[in-house]
Amino acid sequence: MKKGIAEVPGVKCGVGFGGIKKTIHKINRPDTLLIIFDQPSTFAAVFTQNEVKAAPIKVSQQIKGRISGIVANSGNANACTGNKGIQDASTMIQLAQKYSKTKEQFLVASTGVIGEPLPMDRIEKGIKEAAENLGKAKSTLPAEAIMTTDTFPKVAFEEGNGYVIGGIAKGAGMIDPSMATMLSFVATDVQISEKLLKIALQKAVEVSFNAITVDGDMSTNDCVFLVATGKSNVLIDENNFNEFKEKLTNLLRSLAYQIVKDGEGATKVARIKVKNANSKEQARKIARKIALSPLVKTALFGCDPNWGRIIAAAGAAQAGFIEEKAELKIGQYLLFKNGSKTNYNEEEVWKYMKNNEEITIELNLNQGTKEFEYLTCDFSYDYIKINAEYRT
Amino acid sequence: MKKGIAEVPGVKCGVGFGGIKKTIHKINRPDTLLIIFDQPSTFAAVFTQNEVKAAPIKVSQQIKGRISGIVANSGNANACTGNKGIQDASTMIQLAQKYSKTKEQFLVASTGVIGEPLPMDRIEKGIKEAAENLGKAKSTLPAEAIMTTDTFPKVAFEEGNGYVIGGIAKGAGMIDPSMATMLSFVATDVQISEKLLKIALQKAVEVSFNAITVDGDMSTNDCVFLVATGKSNVLIDENNFNEFKEKLTNLLRSLAYQIVKDGEGATKVARIKVKNANSKEQARKIARKIALSPLVKTALFGCDPNWGRIIAAAGAAQAGFIEEKAELKIGQYLLFKNGSKTNYNEEEVWKYMKNNEEITIELNLNQGTKEFEYLTCDFSYDYIKINAEYRT
Repeated sequence: MKKGIAEVPGVKCGVGFGGIKKTIHKINRPDTLLIIFDQPSTFAAVFTQNEVKAAPIKVSQQIKGRISGIVANSGNANACTGNKGIQDASTMIQLAQKYSKTKEQFLVASTGVIGEPLPMDRIEKGIKEAAENLGKAKSTLPAEAIMTTDTFPKVAFEEGNGYVIGGIAKGAGMIDPSMATMLSFVATDVQISEKLLKIALQKAVEVSFNAITVDGDMSTNDCVFLVATGKSNVLIDENNFNEFKEKLTNLLRSLAYQIVKDGEGATKVARIKVKNANSKEQARKIARKIALSPLVKTALFGCDPNWGRIIAAAGAAQAGFIEEKAELKIGQYLLFKNGSKTNYNEEEVWKYMKNNEEITIELNLNQGTKEFEYLTCDFSYDYIKINAEYRT
Repeated sequence: MKKGIAEVPGVKCGVGFGGIKKTIHKINRPDTLLIIFDQPSTFAAVFTQNEVKAAPIKVSQQIKGRISGIVANSGNANACTGNKGIQDASTMIQLAQKYSKTKEQFLVASTGVIGEPLPMDRIEKGIKEAAENLGKAKSTLPAEAIMTTDTFPKVAFEEGNGYVIGGIAKGAGMIDPSMATMLSFVATDVQISEKLLKIALQKAVEVSFNAITVDGDMSTNDCVFLVATGKSNVLIDENNFNEFKEKLTNLLRSLAYQIVKDGEGATKVARIKVKNANSKEQARKIARKIALSPLVKTALFGCDPNWGRIIAAAGAAQAGFIEEKAELKIGQYLLFKNGSKTNYNEEEVWKYMKNNEEITIELNLNQGTKEFEYLTCDFSYDYIKINAEYRT
C-alpha cells in the first residue's frame, strides 16, 4: 500500500462526492477533502506569486497561529469570482468546522475551473460526507479527491529518525474552461517551532516545486501546506534540522517529479542539470530557460538531440553564459565543447532519447562550483489537444 | 508589383543559387543575397541579445562607419561554429567585395542550420552569381533569398515627404536541425546623421520586432540593418524626424506583422492591447506575458474565449496588475469586469474567434494612461509537427 498524508500519526482524512467535478475520469472520483489534525497544529504555507489570487488563497493567507484542519475541493477553483468567492471560501471553512465538530482554524484550497461561482450546495454535500468518513480515506484516496486532469494520484512518504513525513499533491493540469493548479498538502509528526518549519518548507520548495515546469504558466491557486502534528516524541532543533529538511526535500521532490511525469500530454521527463556555475542563481536561470523553451520541449518529443536549441536557450537566459567554455551532454553523450559540436553519433543519441522516458541534459558551464537542477517535460500533440480542443 | 528594399534609390540587389539550402520549398529559391549601395552609406543596426551570438553577428558588430553593402545567405546560420565560423563570415565579406568590385565595408548575416560549418564553395558560387545579377533582383526576390521555413516573402515600402523606405524580412521559423532567425534589411534614400538613424531604428524596433513573439525563443542570429543611401534631396533633422520615425515604425510593424502571420503552424494573429497602464513598461510586461502564454496560445487555436487564462497570465507578469480594476475584451465583447466575468454570450465570442484570422484582445488596466501592443500567434498541432517531426 502506498503511503501519503493519511499515514502520518495525528492525521485523519475523509473524502466526499459532492458532484462538483465534471466527469473527466473514467472512474467516479471524490471531489472534496477534509484533513483533520488530532490537536491544533503548527503549519507553514507557500502560496502562488501570481498577482491574481484565487479566493481560497486570499482567505488562507490570513490564517495565523495553529490550525485544526484543511478543507479542499476539486472541480472549481473559486478564482476570479469577486467578493462572493471570498465569502464562499470562508463558508467552506465554517462548514468544515461544523461537520467535523472542530472550532479551531482551517486552511482552505480549491482547484478546477476559473471564473465560475462555487456550487455551495454540492460543496456542503461533499464536506458533510467527508466528515462522516473521517479516518477512512487512506493511501492515495485523499490525493484522488484533489485530482483534475491528473491521470494518477500523487503521494509520497519519508521516514526520519523517529518520525515520518507524508504528503499528497495534484499536478499542473487544465480543466474546462481554464487552467488549474498545483496543490500539495504535507504533514509530519515532529515537534517543531513555526519558525523552523517555515524555513524548512521554503528551502525544500525552492529545489522541488519551484524547480519544475510543465508550460510556464503560473496558476492563481497554487499552494503548499505543511503541518506538524507533534505526535511523535522527536523535537526538531538545530541538531537534527538538516536531516529533517533533507527528508522533506526528498518528499517534495518526489511529488514534484510525479507532477512533471503527469504533465499534460507529456511522454518524457527531462532533468536539466546546470553545473559549475558562478552562482546557484546563474545555474537556476539557465536551467529554467532551457526547461521552458518550446523548441527544446518539442525536440524532446521528437527525440531530437538538438543541442543548438539548448545552447541558444542558455544564451537567451542572459545570465552570463559563455559559449566557448560550456560543455553539453545528453545522457552520457558529449555533444558540444569548445564552442562547436563534437563528433558524436547522432543515431546513438537519438536511440537514447527514444528508449528512455527520463532524459538527462547536463550543461557544464565551467565557470564555478554551483549547480541547479530543473525538471521539465516534452511538448506533444496531446498538450495542444488537451488545451485547445476541449470543446470537441 | 510589391515594393521592397530593391525599389529604394541607390540600392541594387542580386541573388544567387549556391545550393546551400536543402529543398524545403517546392519551388527552387535563391539562397544568397547581395545588396549594394551606390555610395558608402550611413547605417544603424540592432542585434540579438542572446549571449550566444552567431559568427556573422560577431563580425557585423565590429563594423563602424559607412558601408557599401550587405551580404547574406540562408540555409546555414554559421552559429556555434567556433573560430572557423568567424573566419568564414569574414571570408563572405571578402568574396562580396571581390565579386562586386567594391573595396568598402560590408555587413554580413546568415540564417539556417545551427552548428554546421558554412559550405564555402557553395557560398562563393552564390555570391559570384548574385554579383553577376546585381540590379536584377527586384520586388520580393531579395526577400526570397533569405527565406527558410517562411511560407511567403516579406516586404514593405513606405513613402515619406520626398523620400522612401523599403525593407525585407524573414520570419522566426525553424529549419533542420535547429532554430532559425529573424533578419530584416531596410534602406531609405534620406540624408541623415548616424546618430538620428540609430535613434529612429531603436524606437521603431521597440514597438515592432521587439513587440512580437512566435514561441519566445530568442535566436543566435537575429539582426536588423537600416541603411540611408542619401540619394534623395531630403535631409532628416529635428523638423522632420518624427515623420521619418513614424514611417519607419509603420514599415517595421508591417514586416513584424507578416512574421507573426507566417509563424510556424500559425492559424491566427492576436493583437494584445494593454491600455491605461501606469507606465509603458507595465503595459509591455503584461502584454508580453499574455502573448507568450502557451495556455493563451492554445486557447486561440481552439477559438476558446478563455478569459481566465488571460487574466491569470496578466497576474503572472508581476507588474502590478489589479484584478478588481481590470476590464477584458475579446473583439468587441466585454468578458471580465469588477473582478469577475460578465454575462457575455460564449457562443458569440467563439464565433468571432472562429471567423476571424486576426483576434483583438484588449486589457484595460484602469490604472493610468500608457499602453503597449504585442502581436502573437496561436500554438497549433503544426507547430509541434514542424518542430518535433522533421525527421519523418
